[in-house]
Amino acid sequence: MPTYTPPTKDLQFVLHDVLKVTEADTPGYADLEPEFTGAILEEAGKLTSEVLAPLNVTGDKEGCRLENGVVYTPAGFKEAFEKVKEGGWPGLDMPEQYGGQNMPAVIGSAVGEMFSASNMAFTMYQGLTHGAASAILAHGTDAQKDKYLPKMVSCEWTGTMNLTEPHCGTDLGLMRTKAVPQDDGSYKITGQKIFISSGEHDMADNIIHLVLAKIEGGPEGIKGVSLFIVPKFNVEEDGAIGSRNSVAVGSIEDKMGIHGNSTCVMNYDEATGYLLGEEHKGMRAMFTMMNEARLGVGMQGLAQAEVAYQNALTYAHDRLQGRAVTGAEAPDKPADPLIVHPDIRRSLMDQKSFAEGARAFILWGATMIDAAHRSGDKDADGLVSLLTPVIKGFLTDVGYDMTVKAQQIYGGHGYIEEWGMSQFTRDARIAMIYEGANGIQALDLVGRKLAQDGGKHVMAFFDLVKSFAKENAGQDEAFDKEFIEPLKAASKDLQAAGMYFMQNGMKNPNNALAGSTDFMHLFGHVCLGLMWAKMGLAAREALANDPSDATFYETKLATGRYYMARQLPATALHLTRIQSGADTVMALDAANF
Amino acid sequence: MPTYTPPTKDLQFVLHDVLKVTEADTPGYADLEPEFTGAILEEAGKLTSEVLAPLNVTGDKEGCRLENGVVYTPAGFKEAFEKVKEGGWPGLDMPEQYGGQNMPAVIGSAVGEMFSASNMAFTMYQGLTHGAASAILAHGTDAQKDKYLPKMVSCEWTGTMNLTEPHCGTDLGLMRTKAVPQDDGSYKITGQKIFISSGEHDMADNIIHLVLAKIEGGPEGIKGVSLFIVPKFNVEEDGAIGSRNSVAVGSIEDKMGIHGNSTCVMNYDEATGYLLGEEHKGMRAMFTMMNEARLGVGMQGLAQAEVAYQNALTYAHDRLQGRAVTGAEAPDKPADPLIVHPDIRRSLMDQKSFAEGARAFILWGATMIDAAHRSGDKDADGLVSLLTPVIKGFLTDVGYDMTVKAQQIYGGHGYIEEWGMSQFTRDARIAMIYEGANGIQALDLVGRKLAQDGGKHVMAFFDLVKSFAKENAGQDEAFDKEFIEPLKAASKDLQAAGMYFMQNGMKNPNNALAGSTDFMHLFGHVCLGLMWAKMGLAAREALANDPSDATFYETKLATGRYYMARQLPATALHLTRIQSGADTVMALDAANF
Repeated sequence: MPTYTPPTKDLQFVLHDVLKVTEADTPGYADLEPEFTGAILEEAGKLTSEVLAPLNVTGDKEGCRLENGVVYTPAGFKEAFEKVKEGGWPGLDMPEQYGGQNMPAVIGSAVGEMFSASNMAFTMYQGLTHGAASAILAHGTDAQKDKYLPKMVSCEWTGTMNLTEPHCGTDLGLMRTKAVPQDDGSYKITGQKIFISSGEHDMADNIIHLVLAKIEGGPEGIKGVSLFIVPKFNVEEDGAIGSRNSVAVGSIEDKMGIHGNSTCVMNYDEATGYLLGEEHKGMRAMFTMMNEARLGVGMQGLAQAEVAYQNALTYAHDRLQGRAVTGAEAPDKPADPLIVHPDIRRSLMDQKSFAEGARAFILWGATMIDAAHRSGDKDADGLVSLLTPVIKGFLTDVGYDMTVKAQQIYGGHGYIEEWGMSQFTRDARIAMIYEGANGIQALDLVGRKLAQDGGKHVMAFFDLVKSFAKENAGQDEAFDKEFIEPLKAASKDLQAAGMYFMQNGMKNPNNALAGSTDFMHLFGHVCLGLMWAKMGLAAREALANDPSDATFYETKLATGRYYMARQLPATALHLTRIQSGADTVMALDAANF
Repeated sequence: MPTYTPPTKDLQFVLHDVLKVTEADTPGYADLEPEFTGAILEEAGKLTSEVLAPLNVTGDKEGCRLENGVVYTPAGFKEAFEKVKEGGWPGLDMPEQYGGQNMPAVIGSAVGEMFSASNMAFTMYQGLTHGAASAILAHGTDAQKDKYLPKMVSCEWTGTMNLTEPHCGTDLGLMRTKAVPQDDGSYKITGQKIFISSGEHDMADNIIHLVLAKIEGGPEGIKGVSLFIVPKFNVEEDGAIGSRNSVAVGSIEDKMGIHGNSTCVMNYDEATGYLLGEEHKGMRAMFTMMNEARLGVGMQGLAQAEVAYQNALTYAHDRLQGRAVTGAEAPDKPADPLIVHPDIRRSLMDQKSFAEGARAFILWGATMIDAAHRSGDKDADGLVSLLTPVIKGFLTDVGYDMTVKAQQIYGGHGYIEEWGMSQFTRDARIAMIYEGANGIQALDLVGRKLAQDGGKHVMAFFDLVKSFAKENAGQDEAFDKEFIEPLKAASKDLQAAGMYFMQNGMKNPNNALAGSTDFMHLFGHVCLGLMWAKMGLAAREALANDPSDATFYETKLATGRYYMARQLPATALHLTRIQSGADTVMALDAANF
């Protein structure tokens, strides 16, 4: 059975050594002293490793069960959810006004990684609730906020997002779910939604569905879509639970993974719904959830890679096989452990350097969200908007690959469900698909985000890398060669790719879009390269200031060197592909495939 | 439900336009006229697409069931297996003396791809039997051959390979299964074997297990391993089925995929076994099976990629989503089909260009096997020995990635088991692991095969690429630029990598082994690049000779151009990684990970 060790020390390293959160002038950041964040991370680590992680394999095996309209979650989930609620974890970064603790997003993200890593399917119940609550917070009336948020912030009630229909997912303009206005200001919602995570279950007293539908007589296509609050049980004026609404689970899907989460077909049959935000502006409201969800999904890529890596590492230490090519390292044993072999090392270093780089990337992104939300920093808002598809698409594509590498370390045992390594890949697989498949992330990045606000944010990103390189070059020859120079080369590749799009995308937009996925990966590598340069720098500083924990910081430097030497050079390949343009990609008539 | 369309035209193209099999002087090849091979492929295509493919999803869902020591295969498997036997397919390339049809391996491979693609779990029952029969054919006494082969060639009896034990797989020197010599010349075999594909089932009258074990008192480690024939039912002198041998299935594994194949824990409790080949030379005998199996596993990588691609293509034509960025292509429909989008095209072209390149690679490899076996061509034998780990490791790594890409085209539906796309990835995943995990293939390539016979075979490969490029350059500027030049560049990268190993592997073997997986992939790309150059050339010739089927050949050229422009440049990244050496890979103490 796999285990999970909360990476609290690594999280603290990023928060304090790298991001230096207490020095930022974002409101609330001054309070984030290492002792304080350490205590939170320890507590969250305990809960996730001791309560949630042991339910991961059993939740996968048992799955959810639909009987007479009731969905039963796997054994132990309900009790664990009670513990999560008791600890106040769902409201960690929600406003105090609604019962939350008003922590910054950077703390929510650090804690969130541990939740996702320990039990992804379980954590989705509260994750979706968080997203739905955020949408109500951003677009609801005061009355709606007062009615729903206190119960959602505590997870007494959970939330869902209802977008997809059988014939449309990405292209929501095709949706058929209808909303008919009623005299009392409410709407009757009718239609079928599919792939609804946490759509129905037995762990909450009520479920607040956020449902996209078209108001009758509204504009065609995506411009006629509105967002509605559709509670499973109607809520009385005094907040008490009232009559059952006419929304029901039709079936639960048989999926490749995340078996512990109930993915439902939801049927709305003149269900009572309440407009959230403005008529026909549903997509805007939904994007509040979606952007938050995309960052959360990127984190799932990291989280599954991290927990899979931890278990692969344990196995590589324990399993005896062959001898080191340079001479026996455990001569007293019948064979050396797997970890002596260079190809096993390569795989472990790929995983380790990715997970640590991705962690820094996500927490750095969270500091920008905090700066945007708490300080109204428009530049930070623009930058995180640019990086959202990179965080979602790159971290889930690569995170998935890393779970496959971790599984590979186990050989045949990795293929047997009992060992749990297959589950990490099966669970991680969905993260590449939901909240906008990764091809859509790449399209969003290249087709929208690059040019947003006149290309201001991507220029800001280039400047940021440039200044970083400039400020930190020339102090140490080795650091220049190992960190600064590779980062500059990778960033140059990214700029060349951007330039190619500018010069060739105008005359034929296919020239940009044929390179979109490569560009997203190129961008992701540059971000992780930047993170590793920042981490390397922080490690050097820490070593200079206090050599008592030298091994930890030297390990950071060594891991960074690996990323720079072995992973970052992928930027050149992505650039080559991008610069080959659309000709070979679009050459065939569709009929000739 | 996914479907399978046998790629008979593509197979014929490789056999006749590219490999020109009838012109080769390998015995039996002169008979392989297009009409003849076409008839075989049509028949095999019919059986695989109409009988085996429909059982793929149901076999996955139902799985195998163990009850009171009996393993029941999924519904329909038994009837389908009867049809396969009736058609004589298991003996297609086996000697006539034992009931086979004596076809060359190249035909066996072409047919084998269709079997694997239509139903991988099912096809393993006959695949393992073929491997076991080949080992008996190569190493058995005449009496053993007469006793077992006729029934195995027809698949009335099936076969297995028993290598792995709970504590050892790759490192078989650690094995504990014992063989005790008996007075009658037989042995008593005692031990436990795991991961035994087709270990027990209800589709054959007898199962012939080939079991590795250590004869008591023999040398330590791998040099004390011998191979034994252990039939499920003892076979009488007259060939009749006798008493039950004391070998029994202990359990069947709960696996990520290939649910339709019974992967068994097998317990041998003083079971009667018969030495196959020489005492303590078991590994050599087992490698006859293993090398054949490795080529078959490489084919599984191609086969799953092919069938997944076919279904992704269908979905890309059918699913409506968004509009082409260059203007609506289906203005009469509410949206354009997925296939108009450049990023979808990119993914489909990745899949298509891989599958077609891999097919040529495997069939080319099979012609070398035929040359080695039928003409005693030692150079061909050496070359295919060199390429075996590339075929196994590269084609299964990339083949798996391609099934993931195919699944991605389906968006959320790809994650739902009902659509069958998840199964292709889950089934393909095992091919990276069994018959030597891909890291072991890379080790075999770099640590053994490169230097085999003084490096003669890798030099022959370089010469082959060089002569091909020289002979075919200068006729057509576009062809030079699109095919010949990229091939030469990639081959140069491969030579540079080999040179790096020579110069740096001597002083520290880790410098070679840290680059082994990258080298295997680099090599694989050069092979596929060579295949595409050969296919491109064949397509040009065909277009010049007979323009009646121009679309087919122009599509080949366009697909080749894609591979050359978008996939082959990966060689440079692999070379960069290889040349970064072992320093960053091996920097950490094992304790500091």
